[in-house]
Amino acid sequence: MKRIAIDMDEVIADVIPKFIKLYNRDFGTPLDLKIEAGNEIFMQIPQDVDRKWLEYINEVGFFRDLEVIPDSQRVIKALQEKYDVYIVSAAMEFRNSLVDKYDWLAEHFPFIDWQHIMFCGNKIVEADVLIDDRIKNFVNFKGRPLLYTSPHNLLITEYERVNTWEEVANLLL
Amino acid sequence: MKRIAIDMDEVIADVIPKFIKLYNRDFGTPLDLKIEAGNEIFMQIPQDVDRKWLEYINEVGFFRDLEVIPDSQRVIKALQEKYDVYIVSAAMEFRNSLVDKYDWLAEHFPFIDWQHIMFCGNKIVEADVLIDDRIKNFVNFKGRPLLYTSPHNLLITEYERVNTWEEVANLLL
Repeated sequence: MKRIAIDMDEVIADVIPKFIKLYNRDFGTPLDLKIEAGNEIFMQIPQDVDRKWLEYINEVGFFRDLEVIPDSQRVIKALQEKYDVYIVSAAMEFRNSLVDKYDWLAEHFPFIDWQHIMFCGNKIVEADVLIDDRIKNFVNFKGRPLLYTSPHNLLITEYERVNTWEEVANLLL
Repeated sequence: MKRIAIDMDEVIADVIPKFIKLYNRDFGTPLDLKIEAGNEIFMQIPQDVDRKWLEYINEVGFFRDLEVIPDSQRVIKALQEKYDVYIVSAAMEFRNSLVDKYDWLAEHFPFIDWQHIMFCGNKIVEADVLIDDRIKNFVNFKGRPLLYTSPHNLLITEYERVNTWEEVANLLL
């Protein structure tokens, strides 16, 4: 059975609406903030407040109530029939994200057991496919990388791209 | 640079004295409890109390104050000069262990950055060497496995074995 590794943030968990909500709460940043192609969300925010980004992401609870990326639950459940599916998140960057991400997965992806969850730094993972929004994770990856579209990676052309979970389903199921 | 993955429990963090301390506190189990070769510590405990093992290990704080296995800090620091060193722990089995293990590493191994820490279930790790006390983690491992001696694995003969961190140093440095 082939193995698929799947990233969390910007792939199954949507951090962008959470940032917008917090910026909106604190600074009145418009809720319909458009993110320029190739840019990180925190680069869209006025310079004098962009340090907040790091404060927000380090807060207990930040990762606990993120929205689920559409169709990811249904497609991942279907992928489990054909593949050995792992969640692989670079959670180790943020100490307070660990339990939030664990609980978020238990709530939204209860069909993924603990053996198939990995919180790491560098993704030194042995897998056949890696679905991720960050190309740095593809550099040493020996399998087939699939770049999941997020605003910050829109200008990247050198990887096979998936824009939605429906596209992942069409490609892998 | 070759990559080494190193397990935590029974390899750099000693859980056995912690279990003995807790059993002793609760049941007067003698502190000099000898663990029979090939046996798990919780098999040494009278049947009517051995469920405590699961309670203990799930408690917040269980993994926070474990003793460091002798010489592991010094040898791992030296290994970092020659190898890309990762800590790879199956922490995902116990939700409450995540932050405790993160903080324990920060206290005792501050020279290992977050990029080089991995909390997982199955160890689907891409590495050249894996130092671990559990042979289940060697089954799908493609590199060189080194079995770190712990009472429960004393009867296993089919893997290259290291008994101490001094032996690891002699082998790899």
